[in-house]
Amino acid sequence: MPQISHRGLEMPSSPIRKLAPLANEAKLQGVKVYHLNIGQPDLPTPQKGLDALKSIDRKTLEYSPSEGFIGLREKLVGYYAKFGINDITHENIIITSGGSEAILFAFLACMNPGDEMIMVEPGYANYISFAVTAGIKVKTVTSYIEDGFKLPPVEDFEEAITPHTRAILLCNPNNPTGYVYSPDELQKIKELVVKYDLYLIADEVYREFVYTDEPYVSAMSLGLPQNVILVDSVSKRYSECGIRIGMLVTRNRMVHDTVMKYCQARLSPPLLGQIVADASIEGVEDYARECFDEYKARRDFFIKGLNSIPGVYSPMPHGAFYTVASLPVADAEDFCRWCLTDFRMDGETIMMAPAAGFYRNPDLGRNQVRLAYVLCREDLQRSLMLLRAALRAYNNRTVF
Amino acid sequence: MPQISHRGLEMPSSPIRKLAPLANEAKLQGVKVYHLNIGQPDLPTPQKGLDALKSIDRKTLEYSPSEGFIGLREKLVGYYAKFGINDITHENIIITSGGSEAILFAFLACMNPGDEMIMVEPGYANYISFAVTAGIKVKTVTSYIEDGFKLPPVEDFEEAITPHTRAILLCNPNNPTGYVYSPDELQKIKELVVKYDLYLIADEVYREFVYTDEPYVSAMSLGLPQNVILVDSVSKRYSECGIRIGMLVTRNRMVHDTVMKYCQARLSPPLLGQIVADASIEGVEDYARECFDEYKARRDFFIKGLNSIPGVYSPMPHGAFYTVASLPVADAEDFCRWCLTDFRMDGETIMMAPAAGFYRNPDLGRNQVRLAYVLCREDLQRSLMLLRAALRAYNNRTVF
Repeated sequence: MPQISHRGLEMPSSPIRKLAPLANEAKLQGVKVYHLNIGQPDLPTPQKGLDALKSIDRKTLEYSPSEGFIGLREKLVGYYAKFGINDITHENIIITSGGSEAILFAFLACMNPGDEMIMVEPGYANYISFAVTAGIKVKTVTSYIEDGFKLPPVEDFEEAITPHTRAILLCNPNNPTGYVYSPDELQKIKELVVKYDLYLIADEVYREFVYTDEPYVSAMSLGLPQNVILVDSVSKRYSECGIRIGMLVTRNRMVHDTVMKYCQARLSPPLLGQIVADASIEGVEDYARECFDEYKARRDFFIKGLNSIPGVYSPMPHGAFYTVASLPVADAEDFCRWCLTDFRMDGETIMMAPAAGFYRNPDLGRNQVRLAYVLCREDLQRSLMLLRAALRAYNNRTVF
Repeated sequence: MPQISHRGLEMPSSPIRKLAPLANEAKLQGVKVYHLNIGQPDLPTPQKGLDALKSIDRKTLEYSPSEGFIGLREKLVGYYAKFGINDITHENIIITSGGSEAILFAFLACMNPGDEMIMVEPGYANYISFAVTAGIKVKTVTSYIEDGFKLPPVEDFEEAITPHTRAILLCNPNNPTGYVYSPDELQKIKELVVKYDLYLIADEVYREFVYTDEPYVSAMSLGLPQNVILVDSVSKRYSECGIRIGMLVTRNRMVHDTVMKYCQARLSPPLLGQIVADASIEGVEDYARECFDEYKARRDFFIKGLNSIPGVYSPMPHGAFYTVASLPVADAEDFCRWCLTDFRMDGETIMMAPAAGFYRNPDLGRNQVRLAYVLCREDLQRSLMLLRAALRAYNNRTVF
């Protein structure tokens, strides 16, 4: 029997989805599971996007261009201008199968196997998966819950940089912490990128969900045209996770042309998703405002609720719709599993993502969970009650 | 300025799409271009598939499961049974973003960087791209136009096998040659796979287009449950190239579970495409028969027409909707370019894929092109006239 590849064995299981079998088991028993584990927004997709599906007038669902439809890419130029990203044309934009594909293609085009990339931990777990896929070594610099997950000191980055370092990856606003990097912090990253001639791969899919009054600064506005690669997606901002439409944006022509070869190999991004995304972009101001207000209200409600539970602590996240919170347990993964297998209150329980999977250092985040506030306030309230009761029961249980 | 990765530079441009800029240029001049270069079927998508889009009753276009919807996977079990593929359940089937993703994930799960895979040349060019992506060395065994592109002798395979060989990749019916491997030939492949304990990655996306009376044998029916990985796609059989729905099917549980980790990293396959594919599978017998009859009639017409042009030779392909033909020119790529840049007849020209891009050996296929007969018969007839005239003009031109 032929063997599995080493890299296949090395691929991590998703910390967001790895407990899914236990959740399915609970559901089969008739238990209602509140999903705080995954950033699957419950808000509706823009009606224009849904309507576009009904008015598709094609006889054949054919390939689209490998780089995506020019019409969608031109609209995106206007969209980015609203966020201070100027001096780009549709020729700087490539449509990908979700932001995921944009990340993988950026890694492949910019780094060789064995090259090193630096990211902040806790960090989006699938970056590690794509790095393993591409044979890239990830070095992490640690941000701490007691600092609100602010950017680690420049010295920590410099300590991690070696002659093999090729890129810094920055997720801003951050998943999983919800931290929004300040203009000052971005300036520090810029100086590192220039000093060591690195790529800066910037995942900014949550840019519409920034709850501070400070102006949001995109990495694309740092004046590093040859270094910056923007990863983007419509998944979160239009509640369109399922259509798999992302973008890779860069002013670096060589990177663009190399990524295009990967795009040609996989032929084309999803046709139907592009049609939906195209219809969703325009005249979406009211929709965006409503989503923003809703997430902000949920955040205020949810974080306050978390911090009112004895032993639970969450910093106030200023962006995205996640937080990393510490719990009064030694092993949050065990607690998360137990919630799915053992804990029930009125036939309900909660599912959370153990935060250890978002750290490279196995000693960190053991008592933390990532929580997504993508449920309606009523469900969030119920989730908070369940969490409070579960913690009490877990810590009072007699273990044989 | 940071550098492009070596592997990025090594990525080949698609021989199918690399001349696209010249075709676009011609179109901008008002020239009508007949696309013989790409397997983009012109036949309509099943009406049920199109109707499914109009009846989508979702408020949110959310993630689907990483492995795809269970309903679609269950329907596929029934579909495969019709082709003699039995003893599988939905748990052997994973939905991917097109067959392309299934190929890449199979490579990643089964082979390490530096491992070797054997395929027949000429072969589907993007296999090479995915191999470069995964750091796999491709060794080719050559099939020849004068043999009708039949399976090369077993000795040629054995000569190519080294201690690093991990897999044989077989596309059946074959793209680009249209060759259908016989049960005897498959038996020879089976013996190699067993003798050297290899994976057999079988791309059978054209199984519905086999024009012989011999029974079609899938690699899944060879009795090699731990070795065979089937790559599949609805793109061609339902004219749904744009929806990006493919499948990876295997009875090898370790391969399945490893591929699932790659699937989890990229979150989910396209939601909308799955809805269309699901609706397309059932009650599609009349549709499939019509497509089959149409392609068969086109094949008969087109191959006869090709062979009636002085100096042109095409074997009779028994499957898929491609052929590799030799032309009376020394450099088919130059000729293909010239057709797009210089040749016009009544404001029209043809686009073909130079076959050299389908060979690893740079000396082979220089006078060959891959042609797809996915145009209606009227357009095929016109294309044949254009090819005849273009060859005459090209070979009569005075080159300074």
